[in-house]
Amino acid sequence: MSDAFSFRLIATDGAARTGEITTAHGVVHTPAFMPVGTQASVKGVHPDDVRASGAEILLGNTYHLMLRPSAERIAGLGGLHAFMNWPYPILTDSGGFQVMSLAPLRKITEEGVTFRSHLDGAMVELTPERAMQVQILLGSDIAMQLDECMRLPAERGDVERAMKLSLRWAERCKRAFEGAAAGRALFGIVQGGDDHKLRADSVRGLVDIGFPGYAIGGLAVGETQSVMLEVVGETAAALPAQRPRYLMGVGTPADLLEAVARGVDMFDCVLPTRNGRHGVAFTRFGPINIKNARHADDPQPLDAERSCPAARNFSRAYLHHLFRSGEALGGTLLSIVNLFYYQELMAGARAAIGAGRFADYSGEIREQWNARADLHAEDD
Amino acid sequence: MSDAFSFRLIATDGAARTGEITTAHGVVHTPAFMPVGTQASVKGVHPDDVRASGAEILLGNTYHLMLRPSAERIAGLGGLHAFMNWPYPILTDSGGFQVMSLAPLRKITEEGVTFRSHLDGAMVELTPERAMQVQILLGSDIAMQLDECMRLPAERGDVERAMKLSLRWAERCKRAFEGAAAGRALFGIVQGGDDHKLRADSVRGLVDIGFPGYAIGGLAVGETQSVMLEVVGETAAALPAQRPRYLMGVGTPADLLEAVARGVDMFDCVLPTRNGRHGVAFTRFGPINIKNARHADDPQPLDAERSCPAARNFSRAYLHHLFRSGEALGGTLLSIVNLFYYQELMAGARAAIGAGRFADYSGEIREQWNARADLHAEDD
Repeated sequence: MSDAFSFRLIATDGAARTGEITTAHGVVHTPAFMPVGTQASVKGVHPDDVRASGAEILLGNTYHLMLRPSAERIAGLGGLHAFMNWPYPILTDSGGFQVMSLAPLRKITEEGVTFRSHLDGAMVELTPERAMQVQILLGSDIAMQLDECMRLPAERGDVERAMKLSLRWAERCKRAFEGAAAGRALFGIVQGGDDHKLRADSVRGLVDIGFPGYAIGGLAVGETQSVMLEVVGETAAALPAQRPRYLMGVGTPADLLEAVARGVDMFDCVLPTRNGRHGVAFTRFGPINIKNARHADDPQPLDAERSCPAARNFSRAYLHHLFRSGEALGGTLLSIVNLFYYQELMAGARAAIGAGRFADYSGEIREQWNARADLHAEDD
Repeated sequence: MSDAFSFRLIATDGAARTGEITTAHGVVHTPAFMPVGTQASVKGVHPDDVRASGAEILLGNTYHLMLRPSAERIAGLGGLHAFMNWPYPILTDSGGFQVMSLAPLRKITEEGVTFRSHLDGAMVELTPERAMQVQILLGSDIAMQLDECMRLPAERGDVERAMKLSLRWAERCKRAFEGAAAGRALFGIVQGGDDHKLRADSVRGLVDIGFPGYAIGGLAVGETQSVMLEVVGETAAALPAQRPRYLMGVGTPADLLEAVARGVDMFDCVLPTRNGRHGVAFTRFGPINIKNARHADDPQPLDAERSCPAARNFSRAYLHHLFRSGEALGGTLLSIVNLFYYQELMAGARAAIGAGRFADYSGEIREQWNARADLHAEDD
């Protein structure tokens, strides 16, 4: 499909894998975490700080960008990389998930989905072909097929219908994506809810069509973590070893470790920035709610041993004050802390897998979280 | 009064002056612009970016900090420099101006001012002695006397009473400030509204008491620019040449050039960050309202020739999009652009005064603003 896009598996450790994805805008080391740049901005964080955190690839939201400022406008301005001043790899989703979660009204037919924009109420049509056109205009390095997402729990019949529709859309997407510039890749998305048989059918259907990478979609939509991990484990094991695997919209640091252990290579999630804006910092010692009164006089930084300057250079008392005072800098600093934390967690995972000790790494990380969890129980 | 604090006049050009203030936390080149860190944060801007803009000194607001998180707490955490992670010079105001503009209720007596906190409704007393104690606890390099500010226009009798009260408070402040660590300086504040006789009396009274620096207060509170500049010109001329002169709370780039021409050395103002958050960028070509629709497709940066990365590296279309989408990064980037602009304006003024061509410099800056003012009239 492309000259520039490739995935190379470097090492495996049980089901866990480390590798590298090469794109026209640079290399992505896996397992990789992709910060979310919803509206062409990782909320509250300067792109230089996103890069400094170690992020090698960002996710952009097709749904948001097609509505505002529009894919055509971004294309006219040189594409999403230039628009955001992010000259590194970008993955765009297809918009399907946001249509489900944000549009106040939507109608799904064989042709595609028609929805009401949450911004101005206009009716907008998103077909597989239009989803490809939008992502080609945005110029992302990795595009995602249009799929139908549904919340769980759902009736098996509905899940099956959506999964099969998503397969037919996958085929149309692949055809429509043939017009994309060389070097760009389109990923298929496995659907099938929490039904193992449907997930297996979806994998087979997608592999028959053939994609340079596969995502596991339709999870973290209401099911328990154990259900999610079971589906992830079975699905990842069924996917071709030589293609990258991307678990969409997941998750907490614990989710990431579990999914890496099951063979997932890529993640995206708004948690680092959303929790950061709400005053929750991810640290080696577990989450810390900086708004808690006990931080008001604490001169210690969040973690003096971290490479992240925001974690080292500001006292907990100061961060607490910023949140109490409604100063935007607080959310920015904690978002940076969290972005660094996620990247360091993945960098550690890559090194551990390379050294054949991922289970130990994962255990050590958890032990540290738990050691402090009792001490700081009021932070939960 | 202090070992470390000093002011050295380097050159004059007409009434305009360039010099340097030495403090225990570093040197400040004058004319200097001080960004405002109201609640121990320059709103929306990382301290590294504030420093990168060229700022050599920040202003902290005593009123805000004494109410939250409290001067005692900041002192316990090592002082305001450590608290904010700003190891460079800091000036704190005395709280008098915010008592006037923010407190929902206040009562002024000979002893001091009692006001209702705008945060929790508590009654708070601020005397000259307490204003000194608070600023000593904060650890600022330059403290300001407590004064009584009033809005203009005001009755001459009221202005005279407030000016004389401020003089008596100046004396009490000086006495109370004797307990401050060596190297810290206390400035007196000239009051007297728009009455030249009262201003002259205020200057005489303050100089009799004797301060290492003098501020011109009670301006930019409702009077016209020409009234303000007349008062500034006469007051600055009456102040001792060997002491720095600080015009409080002023102002626009044009105000700064005019006041520098009249012999002012220091400024503070919230305009760079406030206007930045509201989508207005200060540029060589005058103010640009980035929310204006005509920027939606403009691939040009705000100013490709500026040293400020935020002015060079992001298109107007992108900045426009960030504001239209409510992304906080927009306000942050424009605040940075404006902080750089103010610092570069002052750096240019310093160089021009040193070269004996400040009038030409000022004229060239204005010419550039005006050349584009017609073209971009819709930005006003």
